[in-house]
Amino acid sequence: MTSYILGMFGIAAFAITGVISSGKKGMDLFSLVFLGMVTSLGGGTIRDVILSMETVYWVKDTSYLWVAAMSSMFAFFAVRVIENREGLFNYADAFGLALFTVVATERVLLYGFSPTIAITMGVITGIVGGIIRDVLSHRSPLVLGREFYATPAFLGAFLMVILEYSIPDHEFNAIYAVSFIFVLRVLAMKKGLYYPNWLLYQKKRHD
Amino acid sequence: MTSYILGMFGIAAFAITGVISSGKKGMDLFSLVFLGMVTSLGGGTIRDVILSMETVYWVKDTSYLWVAAMSSMFAFFAVRVIENREGLFNYADAFGLALFTVVATERVLLYGFSPTIAITMGVITGIVGGIIRDVLSHRSPLVLGREFYATPAFLGAFLMVILEYSIPDHEFNAIYAVSFIFVLRVLAMKKGLYYPNWLLYQKKRHD
Amino acid sequence: MTSYILGMFGIAAFAITGVISSGKKGMDLFSLVFLGMVTSLGGGTIRDVILSMETVYWVKDTSYLWVAAMSSMFAFFAVRVIENREGLFNYADAFGLALFTVVATERVLLYGFSPTIAITMGVITGIVGGIIRDVLSHRSPLVLGREFYATPAFLGAFLMVILEYSIPDHEFNAIYAVSFIFVLRVLAMKKGLYYPNWLLYQKKRHD
Repeated sequence: MTSYILGMFGIAAFAITGVISSGKKGMDLFSLVFLGMVTSLGGGTIRDVILSMETVYWVKDTSYLWVAAMSSMFAFFAVRVIENREGLFNYADAFGLALFTVVATERVLLYGFSPTIAITMGVITGIVGGIIRDVLSHRSPLVLGREFYATPAFLGAFLMVILEYSIPDHEFNAIYAVSFIFVLRVLAMKKGLYYPNWLLYQKKRHD
Repeated sequence: MTSYILGMFGIAAFAITGVISSGKKGMDLFSLVFLGMVTSLGGGTIRDVILSMETVYWVKDTSYLWVAAMSSMFAFFAVRVIENREGLFNYADAFGLALFTVVATERVLLYGFSPTIAITMGVITGIVGGIIRDVLSHRSPLVLGREFYATPAFLGAFLMVILEYSIPDHEFNAIYAVSFIFVLRVLAMKKGLYYPNWLLYQKKRHD
Repeated sequence: MTSYILGMFGIAAFAITGVISSGKKGMDLFSLVFLGMVTSLGGGTIRDVILSMETVYWVKDTSYLWVAAMSSMFAFFAVRVIENREGLFNYADAFGLALFTVVATERVLLYGFSPTIAITMGVITGIVGGIIRDVLSHRSPLVLGREFYATPAFLGAFLMVILEYSIPDHEFNAIYAVSFIFVLRVLAMKKGLYYPNWLLYQKKRHD
């Protein structure tokens, strides 16, 4: 149940980032709702397809579809009164990344896959929706940026697996892991959390 | 049967837009045929994969594959004698959008899915092939443009569902819905059909 | 067995191109490993999903996942000592294209699909991973370039089908076809192999 509700929040958060990211003056409601829905439903769709689930989650339970549509509509109108759109975008994206990664990791474990697959699919689910959004709206994908992005998702998925193995079915596991990813990502944006130099990409000197 | 033939026309129309959109002086036949095929088969492939169909439509019936390949070849040579390539591109895209949306909506209903899913998959099938094409050829996706694009697809899919529920199996249903989308889209391009202002994306004033 | 090992080499080669292509000064290890893995596992994932395989290959056998991750890490550190990154990128891409196309063609034939589908899926598997990489790293897709790209893949897949039908289960078939594609692609890059003019895209004169 906790994870169902967390999943819905993730859908809403990513839908909002999709609308903010693609929105240009004069675009119409339906186009932006479509893009918000693609952003928010994309990652989980790819997860279910790769895992050969019998039915993709939002085809089985159309509530996800409605939450994505409604959140996109909300964002469409809300941007008119919001001061700091870029700030909202960044926090909503961090929140969505955290929620999707953790919920997906949990669900994939639940279906009986190995931890390796659970972590991989958790990271994919968290990151891919945002990549589709960024490609469509000609924004350089956040995952290609300088700040931590894949790392918090990876560590959070890892933490979730450890928690699920050590305290199975504890209802707060997901909340711990989500908070962990969210805080790490926000710290990365605010404080410029970096790796030590030898873990950063470097070309040969005289290039 | 009608819908089978309409589907083939849709494949041909989108293949042509794929070639025109990606074609740059000096590109070779095979590369462009590949891109034409990706554009025309992409939307329906994603539809079948999301709905967990047992076999993707062009794997089951390779006629689709051949129509896509032949139309792409045709476009490759035809552009040499065509005056108004941009015009052909726009009409072929509108035609393909109309055909794919309606044929997909009908097929998904036929498989027993709910109207919500049928409309969603209709819109996805109609729009996604063009998005892939636009991303690959560095064209800003049409769906992100100022003119109506998602709206005609959505309304047409909606109309198709209503027609199928009120006059089931009437062979002209698909033709009505296709014409509706096509005309709406052409009007949008030619006459600059817009929404009333409050349905357009607006940022806060002093941005 | 041969094809299993060739497949692993393909994974490694494409992972390296993914890291080189996306790498920008200051990016961190995890983000680049993620992009290397997407590049190297993407094509085969799409193949298995389109063919409705019961389980995607790297979900069934996670060795693929580990080879992709390890090769990406290797590339991440190796670029510091490599003189000619663009050269390595081009050869690794040609090698990956050759391996993926041939291994996929063979595997699809083995599953009992028709030659048409085997060739189509071979070309898709070979090309699509690179397209995803190029889109994500804002590089113009190689398949859209002036040199032969889709053609060697297509001809190599064709050759593989002929070999498999005339000398079934001969263990060197795959090696012949891989060499054929690789040599053709390298010749295209080095010697500027082109088609005769009438097989190149040409717009109307007075455009």
